[in-house]
Amino acid sequence: MKNIEVVVAPELTSNYEVAGKLVVIIDVFRATTTIVTAMANGVSEVKTCLEVKDAIALKEEGFLVGGERNGVKVEGMDVDNSPLSFLNDKYVNHKLAISTTNGTKAVEMSLKAKEIIIGAFTNLRGVREYIYQADSDVLLVCAGWKGKMSTEDFMFAGAVVSELSREFVLTDSSEIALSYYLSYEESYQKKLNTCEHALRLMNLNKQKDIDFCIQKDLYNVVPKYYRKTKSFKL
Amino acid sequence: MKNIEVVVAPELTSNYEVAGKLVVIIDVFRATTTIVTAMANGVSEVKTCLEVKDAIALKEEGFLVGGERNGVKVEGMDVDNSPLSFLNDKYVNHKLAISTTNGTKAVEMSLKAKEIIIGAFTNLRGVREYIYQADSDVLLVCAGWKGKMSTEDFMFAGAVVSELSREFVLTDSSEIALSYYLSYEESYQKKLNTCEHALRLMNLNKQKDIDFCIQKDLYNVVPKYYRKTKSFKL
Repeated sequence: MKNIEVVVAPELTSNYEVAGKLVVIIDVFRATTTIVTAMANGVSEVKTCLEVKDAIALKEEGFLVGGERNGVKVEGMDVDNSPLSFLNDKYVNHKLAISTTNGTKAVEMSLKAKEIIIGAFTNLRGVREYIYQADSDVLLVCAGWKGKMSTEDFMFAGAVVSELSREFVLTDSSEIALSYYLSYEESYQKKLNTCEHALRLMNLNKQKDIDFCIQKDLYNVVPKYYRKTKSFKL
Repeated sequence: MKNIEVVVAPELTSNYEVAGKLVVIIDVFRATTTIVTAMANGVSEVKTCLEVKDAIALKEEGFLVGGERNGVKVEGMDVDNSPLSFLNDKYVNHKLAISTTNGTKAVEMSLKAKEIIIGAFTNLRGVREYIYQADSDVLLVCAGWKGKMSTEDFMFAGAVVSELSREFVLTDSSEIALSYYLSYEESYQKKLNTCEHALRLMNLNKQKDIDFCIQKDLYNVVPKYYRKTKSFKL
């Protein structure tokens, strides 16, 4: 049986064997929710960039540029890091370059993986099904917040594990995440309104973003990393 | 109100503000249980050494030398890393130099703290009381296993938080640890017999060590780090 583990912050990824594994990048507030939403609404390709300037440089290649630092849109960017900005097929057929505080780092630390996909509550079922059919050990890599564990990403990891616990060997980290999710299952949305990152977003008047990011299964897309283009596509 | 946070592996400590805080080092299997047991049984001083050779070098200064790598005693050491080796005041008035896989690293990463103390189930109540009377933010630093989250340390962190949750502001990490502990509270010992580290110890025929390490409140000692001697004393 394959195993499934949770990495609570990208900074720990180097302590895990990444090669040969399926990595799920998790940054519920908001990078991965935004990528899922953008692609479900017609964005054709997403590049994640560590540095803001790398994202802005892609404007020349026709990329729409988005992202944030500490939750706030950066000067020179076309869009912020809100999934709401991509609704209603607003940017259909656009390519998007995005740079975010923690989510981008999680991608960069996982490049040795066999496959990298994007996970969020909004595509939870799709992620579970992708993992289920993949014949690989799985690493659920949480973006966290500046090297710290964050509730929303760990909760999502537990939600992923919750319907795969019979098909995979759990490790300490995935067992803890599962247990955490199950202890809140019915009220997970309420919990995700009181965690540290939610409070930061509320201070930035982003309650609507929180409400959107904590909904399950809005979209049935699973963005996947392609080495050739160094970008995520469907 | 002061806050209390959990660091799931020493490798993440650098992402936390350590200066000015009270750090509790947690390595339930087995370094911190062994240090507590040794000092409760008369050992007068404990130095934690990152490298085995640094511990062995302290023999010249009259230190008893102990420790392990991957759970096994190292050649040239006087004692292993089992708390059972220190029972019955066997090494009363001895000084101990110890080098272990993960626990020592947790100490090294925390040296900027205001205070560093040693926590294990065997001195749980003492640790809680120490924290309660200290006027500092608290970091519970789990040794984990090679940069990964481990059940026994995270469970202990949750146990510490469980009686302090009204006196401290919880962060995401301490809320998750508390929730995890509460979901197992009655059966935490059973859980700690099935986690990854327990299985490794069982493979080394260390079931008695596991049984010992998961008992609460055997001793009322709280080893504390002294900068002047670079060692733990009572």
